[in-house]
Order: sequence, then C-alpha cells, then structure tokens
Amino acid sequence: MSESSDDEVTACGDRSEVETLIMEATFRALKDHGYAELTVAHIADEFEKSKSLLYYHYDSKDDLIAGFLRFAGDHFLAMLDEAERDTTGPLDRLRAYVDIYLAAEVDEEMADAQRLMIDLRAQAVSEPRFREEFTRIDAHIRERLASAVADGLADGTIDEDVDPDAAGAWLLSTLTGTMLQRHTADSDVVTPVRAMLHGRIDEFTAGSDA
Amino acid sequence: MSESSDDEVTACGDRSEVETLIMEATFRALKDHGYAELTVAHIADEFEKSKSLLYYHYDSKDDLIAGFLRFAGDHFLAMLDEAERDTTGPLDRLRAYVDIYLAAEVDEEMADAQRLMIDLRAQAVSEPRFREEFTRIDAHIRERLASAVADGLADGTIDEDVDPDAAGAWLLSTLTGTMLQRHTADSDVVTPVRAMLHGRIDEFTAGSDA
Repeated sequence: MSESSDDEVTACGDRSEVETLIMEATFRALKDHGYAELTVAHIADEFEKSKSLLYYHYDSKDDLIAGFLRFAGDHFLAMLDEAERDTTGPLDRLRAYVDIYLAAEVDEEMADAQRLMIDLRAQAVSEPRFREEFTRIDAHIRERLASAVADGLADGTIDEDVDPDAAGAWLLSTLTGTMLQRHTADSDVVTPVRAMLHGRIDEFTAGSDA
Repeated sequence: MSESSDDEVTACGDRSEVETLIMEATFRALKDHGYAELTVAHIADEFEKSKSLLYYHYDSKDDLIAGFLRFAGDHFLAMLDEAERDTTGPLDRLRAYVDIYLAAEVDEEMADAQRLMIDLRAQAVSEPRFREEFTRIDAHIRERLASAVADGLADGTIDEDVDPDAAGAWLLSTLTGTMLQRHTADSDVVTPVRAMLHGRIDEFTAGSDA
C-alpha cells in the first residue's frame, strides 16, 4: 500500500493512479454483476490494492458509480480527441464521430462498455447523480458535434442554412438511439443509419460544391 | 372469480379481459418498484382478481414482463393508428409520429410509461425474451415510418432520392435516442430535435414544389 501514492497524477489528467485502479475494478464488477446486483464488496474483490483505500475514496455504491460515469465519460471524450487527430476537416470529424459510435464491428471490451452504459443510463431515470453525469457527457459530445458543424460553416465546407447546436442535438440523439437499439434488439440498424448519416454529411459537401 | 371469463375478448383484439387486467397490474407494479426490485407478489398485490388466475396465465416474473412488453407495444401501435386517422397525407403522418414521440408536454402516465420502457429496454441487453419483443416493436414502427416515406415517394410529395427503409431506421433511431435523453439527462434536446425533424420533413415538400 505504501508504494502507491493516491495523489499521483497519471496520463489521465488529474486522476490519481489509485482512482484509476478503482474505476477499472468498478468496470469489471459492473460487467460481471450489472448495476442491480452490484455491491461495493464486488468492486473491492476486483480491486488489487488495500480495500481501505477504496472506502477512503468512495462512500457508497452510488458514489462509486457516479465516479465511474465521470471516468468513463472522460475516457470516451479522450477517444474522440484521439479520433479527431487523424481527420482532415470539419466534415471528416463528423464522419469520425459517426464511425466511433456506429462502428461496423465493436470488440468485446467496447461492446461491454456500451452495454454497461445502457444499464447505467436506465438508472439515471431515478438517480439524480447519474443523471448529472449523463447531462455532462451528452453536453460535451453535443458541443463537439456542434463545433464541427460551426467550423464547416466558417470554412465554407457547409453552405446550408443549418443551426450547429440543433444539428449537434439531432446527431447525438441519432447516434445514442442507434447504439441503444444495437444492444437491445436483433435487427441491424447500425448499417442503414451509418449509411444515412454519411450520406447526409456528404450532402453538406455537395452543397458547398454547387 | 366466476363472473370473469378469461377467454372473454375485449376491444384490444384477442386479448382477454383478465390478461388486460394482469397487464395493467404489471404496469402499476413496475412503476412503483422498477424491474430490479419487482416480484410476482408485487404484481399480484396490484391485481384485483384471484391470484390463482395470474399464476394460471404466467409462470414467472420474466414471463409477465415479456407479456407486458407485447401488451405495451400493441398499445403504442394502436396509439399510432389513432394518430394516423387525423392526418392528411404521408408527410403529415411522419409529423404525427414525431409529435407522439417528442411531445412538448407528456402527461404523468405517458412519462411513467416511457421511463418504464427505458428500464425494460436496458434489461433487453441480457434477456433474450425482452429483446425479442423490442425487436418486434421496433420493426413495426420502422415499417410505419418507411411506409409513410414510400407513400410520399409514390404520390410525389417526396421527390428526393431517399430509401424508405433506411429513412425509417434513421428516424426511429433519432426518436428513440431523443426520448432516452429526455428521461436520463437534464438538457432539453426534445425541442431542437423536434424542430430539426419537422424542418427535414418540410424539406421533403419543398423538394416536390421545386
């Protein structure tokens, strides 16, 4: 226990190494038990360091889950940052976001993460702290989408009369709904919706060529 | 108990009066307890007739919930039928669907029903029987949306090159995602998304005028 300082700053910004390990333990425990069956003891079982550290940082199951949502949200935003780095312009950024949400193939870890977020999202109906985290994550992603549209308008790649904020809201709703259906129903909606969205983004370019 | 025949056919098609009462009891019990805490005893408590009738019809909690999803899905499709009756053409049908999903104001009973469907939808991640019901409901609604688009293409109200099935999938994803966010986050996404969708539907008409 003495070799790990819980004020240590890692690559994940100002999150300590211990907090990161706790969040990874929470992810594994949530994956195995689901929110309803989850107990703090399950998380402690997955945590390799002293249990007292876990109880020192978090008071309850919902405290851990709220922390996990913040962690997972930041992780997802970092993924979007990463994806943005390889893009060549605003429309390409929009395409990258679509492809992250609606990848043709998702590996098991990503599928687990998406399924788990659906479970926690349903809890946000009645749990204000989870709701607060989803409000924050949604707002961040909507802003990214809106700013890609705004940049497209500014540099002339988009010459339609489109409101960036409304377009961001509409896009995030579509992505969220498609991902939800992917994991809760058996029809393939990912393929047609991804194609529709790419088509819509291409129309933005077509507009500016006209 | 003798005054109710459980083969009686009501206005709801071939669903018996007893089944309808059981489903209404399931709705009330789900509303009070949520899926995770729900027991068959909770449903029995809400059921006014003999408990033995309930056990005669359904074997388990998940059997009741699968039945409830079928019931709720049929109820929602009947609502769409009702809404269609007052419409004046394919685009107006699309607008009616948007307004049912994304009503500016939802009364408490509808809000409860939507919140409860989010809870059950999250269970469909791991429960194949629920998944089957959501697959069925989604497919029906996508077909309605697709057929409105197809009718618009057939009668010339839509003269864009749009694939009805893909448009139906895209619309349902948007509506589903917006409704999910309405109940699980605090930002108002309903207003901008409804406006975007109405604008998009108006563009279909604009296209045919051009």
